Amino acid sequence: MKTRAMVLEAFNAPLKMRELEIPMLQDSEVLVRIDAAGVCGSDVHMWKGEDERTPLPIVLGHEGVGTVADVKGRKEYVTGGALKTGDRILWNRGVSCNGCYYCAVLNQPWLCNTRKVYGINRPLSEPPGLNGCYAEHLVLAASTDIFKIDEETDPAIFVSASCSGATVAHAFDEHSFPFGSSVVIQGPGPLGVYAVAFARHLGASDIIVTGGSENRLQLCKDFGATAVLNRRTSSIEERKEFILGRTGGRGADVVIEAAGDPSAVHEGLPLLRPGGAYLSIGFSQPPGICNVDFFKDVVRKNIKIQGVWVSGTRHTFQALKLIERQKELFGKMITHRFRLEEANKALRVMEGHEALKAVLIPW
Amino acid sequence: MKTRAMVLEAFNAPLKMRELEIPMLQDSEVLVRIDAAGVCGSDVHMWKGEDERTPLPIVLGHEGVGTVADVKGRKEYVTGGALKTGDRILWNRGVSCNGCYYCAVLNQPWLCNTRKVYGINRPLSEPPGLNGCYAEHLVLAASTDIFKIDEETDPAIFVSASCSGATVAHAFDEHSFPFGSSVVIQGPGPLGVYAVAFARHLGASDIIVTGGSENRLQLCKDFGATAVLNRRTSSIEERKEFILGRTGGRGADVVIEAAGDPSAVHEGLPLLRPGGAYLSIGFSQPPGICNVDFFKDVVRKNIKIQGVWVSGTRHTFQALKLIERQKELFGKMITHRFRLEEANKALRVMEGHEALKAVLIPW
Amino acid sequence: MKTRAMVLEAFNAPLKMRELEIPMLQDSEVLVRIDAAGVCGSDVHMWKGEDERTPLPIVLGHEGVGTVADVKGRKEYVTGGALKTGDRILWNRGVSCNGCYYCAVLNQPWLCNTRKVYGINRPLSEPPGLNGCYAEHLVLAASTDIFKIDEETDPAIFVSASCSGATVAHAFDEHSFPFGSSVVIQGPGPLGVYAVAFARHLGASDIIVTGGSENRLQLCKDFGATAVLNRRTSSIEERKEFILGRTGGRGADVVIEAAGDPSAVHEGLPLLRPGGAYLSIGFSQPPGICNVDFFKDVVRKNIKIQGVWVSGTRHTFQALKLIERQKELFGKMITHRFRLEEANKALRVMEGHEALKAVLIPW
Amino acid sequence: MKTRAMVLEAFNAPLKMRELEIPMLQDSEVLVRIDAAGVCGSDVHMWKGEDERTPLPIVLGHEGVGTVADVKGRKEYVTGGALKTGDRILWNRGVSCNGCYYCAVLNQPWLCNTRKVYGINRPLSEPPGLNGCYAEHLVLAASTDIFKIDEETDPAIFVSASCSGATVAHAFDEHSFPFGSSVVIQGPGPLGVYAVAFARHLGASDIIVTGGSENRLQLCKDFGATAVLNRRTSSIEERKEFILGRTGGRGADVVIEAAGDPSAVHEGLPLLRPGGAYLSIGFSQPPGICNVDFFKDVVRKNIKIQGVWVSGTRHTFQALKLIERQKELFGKMITHRFRLEEANKALRVMEGHEALKAVLIPW
Repeated sequence: MKTRAMVLEAFNAPLKMRELEIPMLQDSEVLVRIDAAGVCGSDVHMWKGEDERTPLPIVLGHEGVGTVADVKGRKEYVTGGALKTGDRILWNRGVSCNGCYYCAVLNQPWLCNTRKVYGINRPLSEPPGLNGCYAEHLVLAASTDIFKIDEETDPAIFVSASCSGATVAHAFDEHSFPFGSSVVIQGPGPLGVYAVAFARHLGASDIIVTGGSENRLQLCKDFGATAVLNRRTSSIEERKEFILGRTGGRGADVVIEAAGDPSAVHEGLPLLRPGGAYLSIGFSQPPGICNVDFFKDVVRKNIKIQGVWVSGTRHTFQALKLIERQKELFGKMITHRFRLEEANKALRVMEGHEALKAVLIPW
Repeated sequence: MKTRAMVLEAFNAPLKMRELEIPMLQDSEVLVRIDAAGVCGSDVHMWKGEDERTPLPIVLGHEGVGTVADVKGRKEYVTGGALKTGDRILWNRGVSCNGCYYCAVLNQPWLCNTRKVYGINRPLSEPPGLNGCYAEHLVLAASTDIFKIDEETDPAIFVSASCSGATVAHAFDEHSFPFGSSVVIQGPGPLGVYAVAFARHLGASDIIVTGGSENRLQLCKDFGATAVLNRRTSSIEERKEFILGRTGGRGADVVIEAAGDPSAVHEGLPLLRPGGAYLSIGFSQPPGICNVDFFKDVVRKNIKIQGVWVSGTRHTFQALKLIERQKELFGKMITHRFRLEEANKALRVMEGHEALKAVLIPW
Repeated sequence: MKTRAMVLEAFNAPLKMRELEIPMLQDSEVLVRIDAAGVCGSDVHMWKGEDERTPLPIVLGHEGVGTVADVKGRKEYVTGGALKTGDRILWNRGVSCNGCYYCAVLNQPWLCNTRKVYGINRPLSEPPGLNGCYAEHLVLAASTDIFKIDEETDPAIFVSASCSGATVAHAFDEHSFPFGSSVVIQGPGPLGVYAVAFARHLGASDIIVTGGSENRLQLCKDFGATAVLNRRTSSIEERKEFILGRTGGRGADVVIEAAGDPSAVHEGLPLLRPGGAYLSIGFSQPPGICNVDFFKDVVRKNIKIQGVWVSGTRHTFQALKLIERQKELFGKMITHRFRLEEANKALRVMEGHEALKAVLIPW
Repeated sequence: MKTRAMVLEAFNAPLKMRELEIPMLQDSEVLVRIDAAGVCGSDVHMWKGEDERTPLPIVLGHEGVGTVADVKGRKEYVTGGALKTGDRILWNRGVSCNGCYYCAVLNQPWLCNTRKVYGINRPLSEPPGLNGCYAEHLVLAASTDIFKIDEETDPAIFVSASCSGATVAHAFDEHSFPFGSSVVIQGPGPLGVYAVAFARHLGASDIIVTGGSENRLQLCKDFGATAVLNRRTSSIEERKEFILGRTGGRGADVVIEAAGDPSAVHEGLPLLRPGGAYLSIGFSQPPGICNVDFFKDVVRKNIKIQGVWVSGTRHTFQALKLIERQKELFGKMITHRFRLEEANKALRVMEGHEALKAVLIPW
């Protein structure tokens, strides 16, 4: 049996629609009919050859929601029960080894250095071949962690759970703040929107977002931001004064960098109160050289800086639970929808920051 | 009644021996006869006017051990029981307000921004005047947290508990590592020695110290370092290779910066395994500008950086408990002893890095 | 100047309205005009002589909101700024010593064993005498932690912040659960209602309340409970089956005992999944003997049991922040209002469980 | 090829020496030549039919150290590198599914409810059959977590790492105490000895052991206990008074139950300071009904009770690291050694509490 996928064969060149063979499933493997595939900002970097992990040729797409088309033998959901044909599912995009120091001693499988990720480091040549979500079908390896999701809901709103949603869940897993804290979020993109939503549902009292797009800042308000500051109409000094003013002159308890730019670090560290935490989740590509005044901005103020990269099944679970609480709101994140064959167009609207979130609908 | 103290009246000029009045005690205040006063590296910076907190004139000395000469009314020890004349004591050098956001909501009084510190930000003009340890007597404010210590032991070995010892305790309070971790310590000064001792007693399996003084590195081995690397006889690449080699190629679980130099940060972050922690405790003076590659060395590796400054009563308690376990070993830290009138000489041996730890013995 | 208070002079006898002298304030003391005083379930126990801490005669009332009538010298709010006459305030009802092992080493001042509590262990004979909230005026000691609150809002809705609200905040401070957890709450009284509200705002996905009063269970639904189970119309087995059914057969991640009855413990431990946590906050009076099968219900399942009693300023702060998010909803908790002279009537409606929360309005 | 094993075929009857077929290895399976097998107290319960998990017939023995006799294909150590024939190894006795709520969302694979344990719940009939350590050979499943250990050291001293050592590591993983804490340990058996050793290496200052065997109490002192109390020569009241006396009247910060008897819980909870923790790790068999006064001993004192059962790879790793620090001392734990055919004798010396730790040496 055949299926179709958009394949990246050369950097900076258009993805090509290719017909691929659907392989025989191995034990506990799952054939998924893709219902929606997210187009992520990092897909743009991969397409342009800016991400060193990218093997060629590859089916891109690490964010997907689909329907079980076939399953070989028995495969259990993470939360119990066996997968059945016709179930709507979401999965952790990463598959770890389960037996290394990171997986077995630290119990942080997201740090595993042989972690395989659909659509990122698994080329077309790696069996079973259908390893990315820009496709009509995907094959999930036996050790993939899978969740059953609601079939009544538009699948597109779930796709980001396994990427930006899970990454933000990971950030708050690394730093839990007490109820009533004040949180500043730099950057109102998908990571920033999730940061607002999680901060709100984890007990932050004051949530201030800084960014350059008025539309996105307004969406953050819908998600629970208590104040927004437009970078285009305010100065660094004004933003600092505003934030100090709302925190009794102390500074924020937590600042979350979701902008991916060294200037954010430079602005962000001084916004923290002594003992505060800076969660840096936005740097997806080099270079990220920042001049940090360790004496003034880190040591003397007892600051914690936490870098956050990728995520694990626990984080995908948490992102799912978050979306389930406010499905309609998350529907607003999806600004653009394309057919599978329009993947190149989708990459371009993401590249131009026209789209907050673009999704491919293959069927 | 009169007493004597060495007073800093002008930066970069010799301290002067002055005769001062012993004041009438207020309720719960304690008059202490100083038995030993530590001369800290930061005293050198204050003496030279490099520490912006320094008011003039001032009696320096934030590390002290003494004997209760008098107490007005009743004053309780932290661990229970009333102070009595003749008791040998140590105290938290900082006194916090107990009622601000840091003290009362975060329960981290060491962050209190009206914290008063003996010998650091309390000038001679602030009542009761006897506010530093370079003196025959000191007056402890009613809200000072005081510990009774063993009278059989040389008081000099306890002085560093309230400064470098407590600071290192604070670092491990901010980041607890699992039993069996590998720890790298940059800098074998007093902070580094305490870091070795605490790491060893908190379950680190491998403790590697890097530094430039062979004597100090050997002392670290006495305290439990499992390997030492001399910066003068090895290259950055060799040290990295050595550390990766001992950790299955992963890198250390924790790196502790106790060197106070941006080059340590530059060398140290790449020594960490993914998910590791960098505890920066050595920056005592500006400037501390470091070029940090956030993408490569922080975000992509999920690194935590924790700045550490000052300490609280809990940390002084822990440093005391540590010293009590191995008094003889801590005796080796005290390389120089001076009479009170030799304070200027003591500052000079600290300035020249001749002394690991110099102590004034006023009586 | 005179004021009036309802005084408990003999157990089980009506409180008496007495005229008392307003004392001269000492430095940083605050004279408060009480706007609303909460009548707590434990007041009923004190009134009946069932609480061993109760000295006689005493002005009861540990939950209060008021207006600054006078302040001697300067007194700072916890979150910064000086108190001014006319400000509406709330305070931590407990005042700790700040210098003992609990306060200074553990930094958990709520455990301090010389903690003084307004309306609970401070008799009329203890200066300044106005030590309880069943009164027109109260005097706050200099070391009381005070918060400024919104003057536009009905003061009655804030009174429980300093007692049941803070106690529940304390429980979640002792046990933080990951986002998406399932929480069972036993008992829909004030503690249970706060548990629902906090669980919801700290990221619980499923919140199931068990109890005997349909009205109170419905109120829990308003606060965010996702399911309620009436003890009068369901069996233990049915409730267990229901809870296992919603958690993939595993059991709840957290069970919160807010019922104060040994039968709750007996029912509650088996509702937990392996590795789950049982937070026991409802036992306010002896006896509380429970038969616990340590092998089956604690050890083999790796269960954590956490007892929770009283609270600190951090918890009062958190309860305040919670109320500020949903003032109208918290207004529904106040089922009965009385004038000061009706305090005995208020105690009787609390005793009979007619009231969820009764409040005295002195002016 | 054949090997020999001692097989439990009927409860309460002697194990029988049987000749068994060595199977063909599957991919990544490892054939181990057993060098030493621990005889655990719970083996006695299994032998007597007191442990409901025991299938028949079965090769007992969940504690083993061995040498790689064969490996199919490639199998990696947890800390990196491939297993080679001739390597001395230790392994986590439990194998979890890696994909359920406990494994993948909570990242606590020791809670997995389909966890397979060598020598405990894997009968002879379950392929590959060689599933217990009372044998000349054992086959390790592909997903077993394996550590390389030192070949110069007597293998017998490592066997307890995977059972009592790992269980105690698990306990301290669930409750980390600050440096300088006071710890009481009830019961000087293998769990108690490990508790002393870990407590000492994790920073406890005072470690008091209570028990009935003078020999075992003395061994605890060798491991670092600072005081021991013999139950046969002291009363409950005397022990309480002694412990309060050493903690300024407060009580211990942590009490560890390693006795397995309800009377230990009854004695132990009142030994805790307010806010202290009771770690219950000794209950291996029912019944364990304890009368707990929740009001007095749990809630009012803000006590945490933590049940601990089994362990994970992280805990086995930590136990290994602990033994490596003091091999000679751990050698003292091994009081009895037997040949494989003497397994029944070994069970009897464990049953009669003659042995602290008995070990079978098959070759």
